[in-house]
Formats: sequence, C-alpha cells, structure tokens
Amino acid sequence: MAEQVKYVLEENEMPKAWYNIQADLPKPLPPVLHPGTHKPVGPDDLAPLFPPDLIMQEVTQERYIEIPPEVQQVYKIWRPSPLYRARALEKALGTPAKIYYKYEGVSPTGSHKPNTAVPQAYYNKKAGTKKLSTETGAGQWGSSLAFAGSCFGLEVEVFQVKVSYETKPYRSIFMKTFGAQCYPSPSDRTEVGKKILEKDPACTGSLGIAISEAVESCMKSEVPTKYALGSVLNHVLMHQTIIGQEAISQLEKAGDYPDVLVGCTGGGSNFAGMCFPFIGQKFRGEAKKSFRVVAVEPAACPSLTKGKYTYDFGDTGHMTPLIKCHTLGHPFIPPPDHAGGLRYHAMAPLISHLKELGELEAVAYRQTECFEAGILFAKHEGILPAPEANHAVKGAIEEALRCKREGKSEVILFNLCGHGNFDMAAYDKFNQGAMKDSDFNEEDMALALAATPKIAE
Amino acid sequence: MAEQVKYVLEENEMPKAWYNIQADLPKPLPPVLHPGTHKPVGPDDLAPLFPPDLIMQEVTQERYIEIPPEVQQVYKIWRPSPLYRARALEKALGTPAKIYYKYEGVSPTGSHKPNTAVPQAYYNKKAGTKKLSTETGAGQWGSSLAFAGSCFGLEVEVFQVKVSYETKPYRSIFMKTFGAQCYPSPSDRTEVGKKILEKDPACTGSLGIAISEAVESCMKSEVPTKYALGSVLNHVLMHQTIIGQEAISQLEKAGDYPDVLVGCTGGGSNFAGMCFPFIGQKFRGEAKKSFRVVAVEPAACPSLTKGKYTYDFGDTGHMTPLIKCHTLGHPFIPPPDHAGGLRYHAMAPLISHLKELGELEAVAYRQTECFEAGILFAKHEGILPAPEANHAVKGAIEEALRCKREGKSEVILFNLCGHGNFDMAAYDKFNQGAMKDSDFNEEDMALALAATPKIAE
Repeated sequence: MAEQVKYVLEENEMPKAWYNIQADLPKPLPPVLHPGTHKPVGPDDLAPLFPPDLIMQEVTQERYIEIPPEVQQVYKIWRPSPLYRARALEKALGTPAKIYYKYEGVSPTGSHKPNTAVPQAYYNKKAGTKKLSTETGAGQWGSSLAFAGSCFGLEVEVFQVKVSYETKPYRSIFMKTFGAQCYPSPSDRTEVGKKILEKDPACTGSLGIAISEAVESCMKSEVPTKYALGSVLNHVLMHQTIIGQEAISQLEKAGDYPDVLVGCTGGGSNFAGMCFPFIGQKFRGEAKKSFRVVAVEPAACPSLTKGKYTYDFGDTGHMTPLIKCHTLGHPFIPPPDHAGGLRYHAMAPLISHLKELGELEAVAYRQTECFEAGILFAKHEGILPAPEANHAVKGAIEEALRCKREGKSEVILFNLCGHGNFDMAAYDKFNQGAMKDSDFNEEDMALALAATPKIAE
Repeated sequence: MAEQVKYVLEENEMPKAWYNIQADLPKPLPPVLHPGTHKPVGPDDLAPLFPPDLIMQEVTQERYIEIPPEVQQVYKIWRPSPLYRARALEKALGTPAKIYYKYEGVSPTGSHKPNTAVPQAYYNKKAGTKKLSTETGAGQWGSSLAFAGSCFGLEVEVFQVKVSYETKPYRSIFMKTFGAQCYPSPSDRTEVGKKILEKDPACTGSLGIAISEAVESCMKSEVPTKYALGSVLNHVLMHQTIIGQEAISQLEKAGDYPDVLVGCTGGGSNFAGMCFPFIGQKFRGEAKKSFRVVAVEPAACPSLTKGKYTYDFGDTGHMTPLIKCHTLGHPFIPPPDHAGGLRYHAMAPLISHLKELGELEAVAYRQTECFEAGILFAKHEGILPAPEANHAVKGAIEEALRCKREGKSEVILFNLCGHGNFDMAAYDKFNQGAMKDSDFNEEDMALALAATPKIAE
C-alpha cells in the first residue's frame, strides 16, 4: 500500500478559537506608544483605524478568542488546510529527518493571508465600516482583503508597492476582478505619496510608504473607512494561529511532534501562526518535547538578523504608533531586484519580543539560493512555492541536511505559506539566470536607523 | 453553528480503481480505424505511440482497473479533492436548488489534468520510455505532464498552441520550471509545422496541429519516446473517473444525489471523469434517482452542438487513427480571440457515443457570458475559475435559475475543473470590456468537414 503523505482534518475538527500567546508570555510585551506623546496608546487612539473588536483583540490577555461562526463559514472554503509529509523530498535529500509541511496555498488567494483578512472584514462589517484601505507588497495580502471584502460586501482599496505592481500584474488584475481598487504606491492620491514622488519620481516603493498612504487615505475618506494590516499587529498574528493549532492535531494523527519549526518572516504573521501554538505549549509545560524555532528571512531585508531592537514607526510617513521591534529603520527600502514579499523594515513586536527572550533563532538567505530550494521542492513534491515560501523551504532543507550530517532522524515542520502561481515572472528570471542577489547595504540601514525616534526607556 | 460547505474524504477513502464505462455500455463503441486501411486498429498499430498498459486500458472491457500504488502515492498530494456546497452562490441567485461542485483546482497544476498525467507518466516509466511528447492548448495539460514527468524522471516536450503560448506566458514558464521543453505550435521543429507555416506564417495554431507536431516528434525521436494525450482517448477519460467516484461518496456524506450533472467539454475528459461513474450507476440500475447530464461547450468551438457525428482524424496532419466523434472537421481552427482551452475540433468518442445514445444533452455559451458567470461565482464562493471552468459555472447557474423559475429544489452537481490563476490576462481583458465573442463561422466548419475521410460504414 502507498505510504501516507497527507493528513487532513474534517470541518468539525477545525479549531473554534484563535490562540493568544499574550496569555502565556513569561514577560509582557512592551507597550505600543503614541507617536506624539510617547505614552502608551489606548483604545481611543486606535479607534479611527480599527473597529472595537479588533482593538480588543490587540490588547486582550485572554488565552482563546472564539472564532465567529460567520468567519468559520468562510474558513471552511479551504480550511482545515492539509499537512503533508514530504516523503519525496526526504528521499531526494537522503536525509534521515522526517519533513512535514503545512500548506496554506489551498486558500482562494493562494496564501495564509485570508486567515486574517476574513475576520478583519467581518468585524469591520459588524461595526458599520463601508470601506477598507490597505497596503500590499507582493500582492498576497491585497488579494486576500479583496476576496474578504467581497465576502462581506465591503469596498476595498489597496496601495501596492510599485515595483510589485509592475512586475506582478496578475495580482492587481486579481484584486480588480474581486471588485477592489488597486493603486501603485507611492501614488499621487495622498499627500505622503506626492511628497515622496516629488523627492524621487522613480521611487519603487516600500511597504512603509504604502502603509502611510493607506492610513492617510483611510483618515480622509468620506465613507466610513477603516484601515487593515496584513501582518505585524498582535490580532493579525493571532488570527493566523489556526495554522499551528491544526498542525498540532494533524501531527498527533501522524504520531509525531516537531524537533524544529521553520517559517519565513517578513512581518511575521505566517511564522507566528504556525509557531505560537507550539511555543504556547512550551510556556504552559505541555510540549511533548523540547524543540527549536527558526525564522528565515531574506538577506535583502534582514530585520531579525541585522536590525536593531528599538521603538520605531510602522510606516515611512510617521502615521502609525510606535512599536518595539527589530527594525532596519522605517525609511529603509529593500533593493528593487528582490523578487518576493518579505520586504518590511520591521518585525512583528511579538516575534521580536520572543527573539529577545531567546525563544527563537533567526537566519537569512539570499533569494537565488531560496529559489533553487523552491524548485527542488517543486520537482519532488509537485507544489511550486511562492518566493516568500521558498525561504521556509530553504530553511527546512538546511535543517534536513544538518540531520543527515549528524545522522539524526529529527522531525522538521515548516509552513509552506503560499503557492507561486502569480510569481512566474520571477521564476522566469531565475530560470534564465537573470536573478540577482543585491548585497545588503549596512550604510543604508545605519542611515534609516538614525531616523528612529529617541524614546526614554 | 456555521453550515457545512465542504465534504472531504480521508486518504484511505480515495478510490483504489478507475471506472471503465465500456463495461456497462448498452451498445459498444464504434472501433478506431487505421487511417490508411480504414480497418480497426490493433494494439500493434498503437505500440509506437503508447506503452502496453495504456493500450490495454484503451480497449479493455473490465469494469474496474486498479490504480497502481505508485500513482495513488502521487494522487495523495491533492486527492481526494473537496466537494463544496455553493451556499453563498445559492443565496446570491435566490434559487431553491442545491448547488454542489467538485473542485479539481487543488492539484499542483491547478486542474484535473494530473489525474491522467501521473498514470501516463508512470506506465511509460515502467515500459522504459525516456521522454514524452505532447501538445497543449491553454497549458493545463502541458503543465500537468511536466509535473508528472518530473515525478517519475521522464523528459517532457510540449507543443503549445501558439496563441496560448503568447497570451499565457506564465504557463510555459511553469512547464520550464518543472524541467520540460515548451515550443509554440506550429513550429519549425517538425515537417507538419514547417508546411503549415509556409502556407500561413501568421497561423495562431490549433490543438489539431499541435497533436500532429507532437506525434511526428515522438516518431522521429532518437531516445525511447512515447506520445501522451490529455483528453479524448478512452484511457484518459477513465483516469479521470476518480473525480466522479469521489463525488458519489461525498454526496452520500451530504445525504444527496444529483438531479443534474454539469461539466464543460473541450475534448471531454473532466466532464467524463465526473459523469461516467454516475451514468454507470444508471446503466447498472444502481442510480438513486434519474438525472440529466449537461455538457457545456464554447460557442466558438461547438463540436457537440454543431458538429457532425462521423469518422475523423484526431489531428490536422493526418497522423492519428480515425475516431468516430462529433467533429467540426480536423482542419477547423477556433477564432484566436477565444480566451480559454476547450478549443479541440472533435469530442471524445465515448462522449459522442453517449450523446448519440441520448444519455446527455449539450449546450453552447459565448465566452463573455461565461466570464460574467465565473466572476459572480468568484465573488461569492471565493475561487476564481479557469476560463474553461467558467463554462461549467455558467451551465450550473442557468440550471439553478431554471429551478428558481420552476420552484424546484433540485440538486445540481458541477465540476469546477480548475482555477484561473494563470488566466489573469483574459480576466483583465474582460474587466476592461475588451473581450469579444466571435461568431461561429458555419462556412469554416463546412469546409473543414469536407476534409473528413469517406468511410464506408
């Protein structure tokens, strides 16, 4: 009989609540600060941007938050998502390790992003919001919010980092097909965009700039509009914990528990979604064994491995509160030849905090070696990963090769956060040998870090 | 509690055999004829093109053929595929009908095609084949064979209809990423291609031409090479019956049985895959109730609704045996502004035969109304269909609206054979109002039909 490769859950086995790691932290998260007063922000400060339920979820210390039935109903389009044993890849690598991966590419937009887009749209609809404004990089998040807005009848407006808007045209067509508006950022639709274009008309954009534009557009809108963020914030990471909770149940069915968890990190949401439920088990003394947690980031935008742990703005235009995080400095712009997402200057505060607590390791790889890993994976496992997910694949393969060298049959679990169907132009570039690895510019980072606010701590 | 929308099967509930409708036909299929002698072909005639196991499967009258464990292992990457209840679409249409759809877009290449690509690659590998040569239209089939070849270590060469090669560049990049060669057809790599380009250098290609090129290339190859076809043939349709067998089990879990089955037809494989297991139940007196079967085809290439039931070549260059089928004439070339696949001049002999037996109805829709249906579906169900699948969506919506008019709560089941992630250029065209519906040219068909061989029957 053929060996089992896939572990599925029934709809009724889908988790009914999100897991909030704040409930189990050994040391609380540093507060978010008001950009003017440098005092901790309160719910009222966030009310112009987010609906009440999401503000509550941002700060609550409750361990579990019930997933509303309306959200569960939409989740069921693609959830529970499958967990795979990568038997063909294991054989190809000749590793004694067992490699498992959770696959989030089965969602309608091909990544993990709808896990939070759907509840964000739902809570906004419930609060009377008519329109959502957001930013996107590679387009995974913008597509997902366009889909979620369409589910609940909300208008959606997306500012997409210009270099991605231009190199990944299928993403904006996708968003428009679902009824959303999509603009390349920096744009002339906002003051912050105009100012940046004045200084640098050829600016290729950054997530920091696009966030500023989306926030400004939200504040100025004439219909009830809120802002939506696809990563970084506590409530966003929490919505993603359905991934790790499912993975725990699925690994139980497989009779395994991980020795190493691997995920790719940009803002950190897919990584957090998979790892937090496991780390929570550890904090509560419920983990079946000790395990390592490895965050893989692009060498072109290495916030965790090279950034400074300090307070910084979430955006370029100083419109957001200040968060304590590993940052390359909010004016930092990754080189335009970086093909994938994962181009945010900062890391989610919760992940940065866990890094400071010694709960996770970080490693950076160059994009060409990640594409190479992704194609090896595709040829054996059949799924072509998104460029972002290639980083996780690379990280998992490196762990599997270490196991081979050390003769250890460890259990490796990684999150394959999305497929690469919309990224064929990048694969084409790679196939033709035309993909480059820009060196990370330490001076750029130093300059950008000099612009972080001085906070008396 | 949220309502159930998805019916999944465990890996161990996956069917272990394909269903062969030839075992249950009330009247046998007309034989395939040798193009020279007009006598029925024997296994030896097919040996240069196909490995022994597939030739056996083409003609066998056994009801079930065991799926080899090696094929089951690869199937498990995405199978069993989900069955959905389209509750959101039902609400949007205000129909009392229940709409179910089987979703084949979860496969690595985003369509049902790997269901046959994988066994074809497997049986060829087993027989010592080193290389597979094939054609593709929109690219679903070529991608799937590239994937399957990569699974079993076979070289793959794909001739893609030129208009699709040019308008859907992501598909050929995808094939190349999996290690396949992909050429626009007509090409100068074959005699048949050269001859056509001489007469018409601007020729946009057709599946008939691409098949001729692939067959010629297979015959001339210096390494052991076989030919692979993605539809039309009996064994190809049989491999797809895993779809319908799974759907029967899933509908059982839902406590339903269809009143209407709907699928889109080009060569007919996804349609056959879903419908044959149900039609087989009917033939054996095991159907839970009587049901209708509706084939939906594009008005631009309407073989079932406008074609003639006669013997014809499967390709333009007269390299294939003669099959009895509904055909528009093998030289027929669909208008180049037809965006999707479903552009084959003929219909699978098994489907044509069932049409003649009165077992199914056929209807043709124009592509713009199909795209409109597909976008309505996407906005409510979250999945953006491939242009081909839009035809099935359109057919199902029309049935649901009929049920609304007639006040009937019928059960509609359709096959959503693939997603549209690689087809965003077509959606862009549609969104911009630039997509056209060419009128079907009856004179073109009459001319093409005049070229069909005269067979004394």
